Amino acid sequence: MKKISKVLLFTLLFMGVGSISAQRKIDYVNPLIGTNGMGHTFPGACVPNGLIQLSPDTDTVPHNVDGAYQPRAYEYCAGYQYHDKSIVGFSHTHLNGTGHSDLGDILVMPVVGKVKFNPGTAENPDAGYRSRFSHDTEKAHPGYYSVLLDDYGVRAEMTATQRVGVHKYTFPGGEAHILLDLIHGIYNYDGKVLWANLRVENDTLLTGYRITNGWSRVNYTYFAITFSKPIKSYGYKERGKTLYNGFWRKFDLYHNFPEIGGRRVVAYFDFDLKEGEALEVKVALSPVSASGALANLQAEAGGKSFEQLRAAAEEKWEKELGQIEVEGDYDQVCNLYSSMYHTLINPSVYMDRDGAYRGLDHEIHQAKDFTNYTVFSVWDTYRALHPLYNLLHPERSRDIIASMLAHYSQSVHGSLPIWSHMGNENWCMIGYHGVSVVADAYVKGIPMKEELALKAVVNSSTIPYLDGTKEYMKLGYVPLEKSGSAASITLEYGYDDWAIYNMAEKMGKREVAATYKKRAAAYKHLTDPSSGFIRPKNAAGKWKENFDVLDTHGQGFIEGNSWNYSFYVPQDVEGLMEAMGGDKRFVERLDSLFTMHLPEKYYANTEDITEEGLMGNYVHGNEPSHHIAYLYMWTSQPWKTQYRIREIMDRMYRNNIDGLCGNDDCGQMSAWYIFSAMGFYPVCPGSDQYVFGAPYFREMKIHLEGGKELVIKAPKVSSTNRYIKSVRLNGIPYDKAYITHAELMKGGELYFEMSSRPNKKRTFTEAQKPYSLNRDIR
Amino acid sequence: MKKISKVLLFTLLFMGVGSISAQRKIDYVNPLIGTNGMGHTFPGACVPNGLIQLSPDTDTVPHNVDGAYQPRAYEYCAGYQYHDKSIVGFSHTHLNGTGHSDLGDILVMPVVGKVKFNPGTAENPDAGYRSRFSHDTEKAHPGYYSVLLDDYGVRAEMTATQRVGVHKYTFPGGEAHILLDLIHGIYNYDGKVLWANLRVENDTLLTGYRITNGWSRVNYTYFAITFSKPIKSYGYKERGKTLYNGFWRKFDLYHNFPEIGGRRVVAYFDFDLKEGEALEVKVALSPVSASGALANLQAEAGGKSFEQLRAAAEEKWEKELGQIEVEGDYDQVCNLYSSMYHTLINPSVYMDRDGAYRGLDHEIHQAKDFTNYTVFSVWDTYRALHPLYNLLHPERSRDIIASMLAHYSQSVHGSLPIWSHMGNENWCMIGYHGVSVVADAYVKGIPMKEELALKAVVNSSTIPYLDGTKEYMKLGYVPLEKSGSAASITLEYGYDDWAIYNMAEKMGKREVAATYKKRAAAYKHLTDPSSGFIRPKNAAGKWKENFDVLDTHGQGFIEGNSWNYSFYVPQDVEGLMEAMGGDKRFVERLDSLFTMHLPEKYYANTEDITEEGLMGNYVHGNEPSHHIAYLYMWTSQPWKTQYRIREIMDRMYRNNIDGLCGNDDCGQMSAWYIFSAMGFYPVCPGSDQYVFGAPYFREMKIHLEGGKELVIKAPKVSSTNRYIKSVRLNGIPYDKAYITHAELMKGGELYFEMSSRPNKKRTFTEAQKPYSLNRDIR
Repeated sequence: MKKISKVLLFTLLFMGVGSISAQRKIDYVNPLIGTNGMGHTFPGACVPNGLIQLSPDTDTVPHNVDGAYQPRAYEYCAGYQYHDKSIVGFSHTHLNGTGHSDLGDILVMPVVGKVKFNPGTAENPDAGYRSRFSHDTEKAHPGYYSVLLDDYGVRAEMTATQRVGVHKYTFPGGEAHILLDLIHGIYNYDGKVLWANLRVENDTLLTGYRITNGWSRVNYTYFAITFSKPIKSYGYKERGKTLYNGFWRKFDLYHNFPEIGGRRVVAYFDFDLKEGEALEVKVALSPVSASGALANLQAEAGGKSFEQLRAAAEEKWEKELGQIEVEGDYDQVCNLYSSMYHTLINPSVYMDRDGAYRGLDHEIHQAKDFTNYTVFSVWDTYRALHPLYNLLHPERSRDIIASMLAHYSQSVHGSLPIWSHMGNENWCMIGYHGVSVVADAYVKGIPMKEELALKAVVNSSTIPYLDGTKEYMKLGYVPLEKSGSAASITLEYGYDDWAIYNMAEKMGKREVAATYKKRAAAYKHLTDPSSGFIRPKNAAGKWKENFDVLDTHGQGFIEGNSWNYSFYVPQDVEGLMEAMGGDKRFVERLDSLFTMHLPEKYYANTEDITEEGLMGNYVHGNEPSHHIAYLYMWTSQPWKTQYRIREIMDRMYRNNIDGLCGNDDCGQMSAWYIFSAMGFYPVCPGSDQYVFGAPYFREMKIHLEGGKELVIKAPKVSSTNRYIKSVRLNGIPYDKAYITHAELMKGGELYFEMSSRPNKKRTFTEAQKPYSLNRDIR
Repeated sequence: MKKISKVLLFTLLFMGVGSISAQRKIDYVNPLIGTNGMGHTFPGACVPNGLIQLSPDTDTVPHNVDGAYQPRAYEYCAGYQYHDKSIVGFSHTHLNGTGHSDLGDILVMPVVGKVKFNPGTAENPDAGYRSRFSHDTEKAHPGYYSVLLDDYGVRAEMTATQRVGVHKYTFPGGEAHILLDLIHGIYNYDGKVLWANLRVENDTLLTGYRITNGWSRVNYTYFAITFSKPIKSYGYKERGKTLYNGFWRKFDLYHNFPEIGGRRVVAYFDFDLKEGEALEVKVALSPVSASGALANLQAEAGGKSFEQLRAAAEEKWEKELGQIEVEGDYDQVCNLYSSMYHTLINPSVYMDRDGAYRGLDHEIHQAKDFTNYTVFSVWDTYRALHPLYNLLHPERSRDIIASMLAHYSQSVHGSLPIWSHMGNENWCMIGYHGVSVVADAYVKGIPMKEELALKAVVNSSTIPYLDGTKEYMKLGYVPLEKSGSAASITLEYGYDDWAIYNMAEKMGKREVAATYKKRAAAYKHLTDPSSGFIRPKNAAGKWKENFDVLDTHGQGFIEGNSWNYSFYVPQDVEGLMEAMGGDKRFVERLDSLFTMHLPEKYYANTEDITEEGLMGNYVHGNEPSHHIAYLYMWTSQPWKTQYRIREIMDRMYRNNIDGLCGNDDCGQMSAWYIFSAMGFYPVCPGSDQYVFGAPYFREMKIHLEGGKELVIKAPKVSSTNRYIKSVRLNGIPYDKAYITHAELMKGGELYFEMSSRPNKKRTFTEAQKPYSLNRDIR
């Protein structure tokens, strides 16, 4: 009950705010979805794929305290938790919904009165500069965020361009200051800041940079900051001891000394502001240089007021969201546009206006004919986010592939991105799914340097020292001695290898294709014939003993148990079905996955698995299962996909702060929603097929790049009418279980006749079923 | 006695080494001069004005231990003390003879056997990788250094180009390794390294960088390293805890993982080398990027053997030294060429081959039409080193001025260099003597952007918050409340202001000139009429009480006592003379300076003052007195200059490890020697006059840039015949007490008739005397 009332309250508040011009698509976006608990989204202001995500940080629990990992740090991956009562300040970079924390660069906080140099604590906000706030005064919209800082009476508003965070602070009078905390960060620990440098160039311009050793190993953030009113006086506190080394002159370094540096710097700037007078602060970032940041500022925000920039940001979002027109229930529409919003934050542009960017080798490079992007949470996003970009944003996909190939070229390992951001590889999670992203783009006709792309996928999959690859290439699987996640890795390597196989095949590179076709059947090495479950082996070929198919930990899997992971063979569903004992047993196992009782001990202490995200033993809050509901489409009971997908859509996406049942993971959760709402899903990226689920909206009109329109109609669809009776493409009956990328890109009308009962006659012949490797092997 | 025998031994050793081809000028250079005690020189390999000074570090006593300054750190300003028994390794950057420690970047050490990851200690070298060595095996020549590392039986040889350190290690067989210690540094303390990054690009190429917070506040050193044989295997140790943050993959980061990073990294590289097989290692540096370093390597050392590069380095030195041909006694000649050598190490080139360099703002800039230089110990070098460059190396002076003006343009303070290196201002020592360097170059016709130069000198001298400048501009002196060095600062500001006055006057900028002419008489505010000594005042104009004119500490002076500093009015010697009570009293005071007994308590615990460097109360080991012996030239007893100068030359410059009586100070001590050996000295840089002392050699032939020759002859000169009987310029009797820059630059013959007795008739009329401000004021 408590939860429902909160949701209601919120919805009312949000509608109140959004009702001013309800026709605008941006008014359906609720950036607060996922800001409570595990969603790890942030509510602040940004524009599509911008470098800037200007957002309030309500806390940043230090990652390490005395060397011990702090579990609560995970809550603050995006720096914000809805249940918090105070705001530390507004920082400029945030990851959208990730499963690891970082960034939170360049914190600005407007304060009144005596300057405090530390943030204080959630328990005792008065001990520091943070301020209490209320959600009553909080507004979160695409490109705009606003809140009243209760402790200071300052109204804070923010908007953004791609590279500039724009602040507007309306002060109540009194001693007005802007704090610039160059210690603050997400993934905070004592020592994260390697160096911070700040120059007061004149009374309205600051420049500087900060180098951090956070999750991103060495992150260079250059900045230029302008104020709309002149600085009256300023100073700083170095909370460490780094002065000028050997410095002894009689300078007052702490007051009005225009050059500030150190590892623990907090600076303040005093302004003469009357009651109700507003100060606008523009903070431009660059990965390259302070002069690059200043040029970014001038190009994107120079001479423009906060209101002009806010209007421009809103217009950008409106245009992006306008790519899909939709007819449906209010909350469903909100979820759709919010999902679109969340798919358009990361990847983020990572280069200056002039094309200069910092590469993986930390050197400055010049992007030739592409826009360089960063934030690649590839283990998550290869599944649906990148395929969604290939469908909706092929121009950006082209840039993303070029960025990934640049990353490959700069990698001393010769590897495509695994989890990379800000010119660093974080080596997070398993597989070499960069190859999937490249292969999927390739088969869908995204332009790329093909020879380089093939080299990149081959090289990325043959780095012997990475996560058991050497043993995998020798044995056909990763043995348990090499990794506690050996079984998961084997399955994912196998899928990635299939993607290389298919890409090479399409390129006519027969030899490469033959090698990888063989590797693509890796899962067979670990299919336990006694159960049909995937089970890890040691190098000698001996199965793991005391094996628990429900346990996520200690069984040779990661972020999923064997029950779920055993379905992870998207490239060879029919082969898998056979290994599991044929159609009947396969369907039974799928059914029981969604319906069985999972004892609490299996998820109680597991990050990313929430009770809301469970459906039996199926975990939607994490990625390895995202394709599973679609696997019925290869079976004799394809309508069960339609049932399950609707169930997941209805239950696991909600238009409220708890609306995501797991990390948004840079848009993967949201991309799943958008695809599934369209009625199809890229079960096996790297193929050109989308497997049908069932449409979610009565009508969706999708404006494709290049001017074509794809209209998806299902006039009778509802939670009751969730089953497909028949499908027509451009009026012609469509009897395949999948639709191809080329078919979609032509535009046209995809019409679904819906029904409250499954059409059990609508099953598929092998030719109508989606791709399966076993057919190539036969 | 002990000292003499050591000197003798050394001289014999050195002569033994140098006798191979004794005609070469480089064989007269003894890089070991000043390597013991206070000289702070280094013995390693470099080429003129190179970025690289590849030299053995015998120790690097940490600067701070638990926050407490370690006095012995001062000994290791250049990383080497002759009395040490072990070598830690060979690092690539060293300051020449400075009074503050820093650099020691990128340490390479060849070792055999089990790898140790720490350097060990002088007391217990076996505890670490350092090796014992003997001076018997040590060879130090311009462009070449060699030593046998006794603990490993490795013969180490090194040479250099401007941007590349070249190593040749001949191994005795066994397990051969190269250590790369990225923690090591001079001005070492826990935390100096902000980040070190290393990539093993292939089996013969490493790239990387290191960012340090040493004395140079943020020093970026990029590198590229090639090996002449392939790396067999490699690894590293991170002596801190910085792994990939959040890293958990099953990679072996410590062995053959090609990407190494952290704050405390020591890496090793294994090689297959037979007995007597040599490994050549080329280490290129860049202030900009690893690719810049690699390009530097390829351009300067690509495809060339160690022997070729050694020959090229020696040739460069031979050419430089060949600018002066000299006839004199062996040790005198050695001292002259060694002095020339020491004046040609700093300033150092600080840009890549393509003109890119890191500016004072830490941004990358492109040098247009100049070579960017760094290492400006301006308080020391404005006196004689920069004037020497104006005379002997006007091309480099032009570049140095352009570099200083670039520094000014990049300075957020609008200041010319004070003590700057590697894109940082260290704010060390007093005055704004960058204005002297610019003004001296200007009056001597060095091309520069004149408007910018005038702006720069005016701005540098009017920064209110720097060292009492605001009060100085108001009161005419720096009050004691503002600085413990208030009197020294006032004197030096006054001189600098005179340099601006003279420069503005020459430019026809009357208004500026008038302002600074007034400021140039600052010393008068602090001349105590009761004693004629300079004595500090407080802001209210009250003289300091309990004033001790002999004490260097706590009296309002720095690096000199009032006795010495009271003569620091080079711009107005006649005015000073008058203030001191006229000619007779002035001469008496000069006499007593050189002859009085200075009680030990006044120098016992004072850095930079050695017993050897004392002559009465005159301190040659530090700079403030460097001009004093020339001041007799304004008096009725000018021959006393001739006496004193010879005395200083004979006693305070010696061809041995203890050969300098104080820090060489980036060549200032050496430049003093060269000028004084020529027979004249720039007492007041910023004027075009050199004041005569007496020549030191029987003949010096100076090849001036542009092809002219200046021949200085004094056939009869000796310690006995130290007095000038008469002077002829191109055969015509010359009766002035000074000679101008223009006269010298025309070339010709300056002929000195010497005598064992002073020519007391040879005194000067006011018109024949050097410049004095009082004449402009009258």
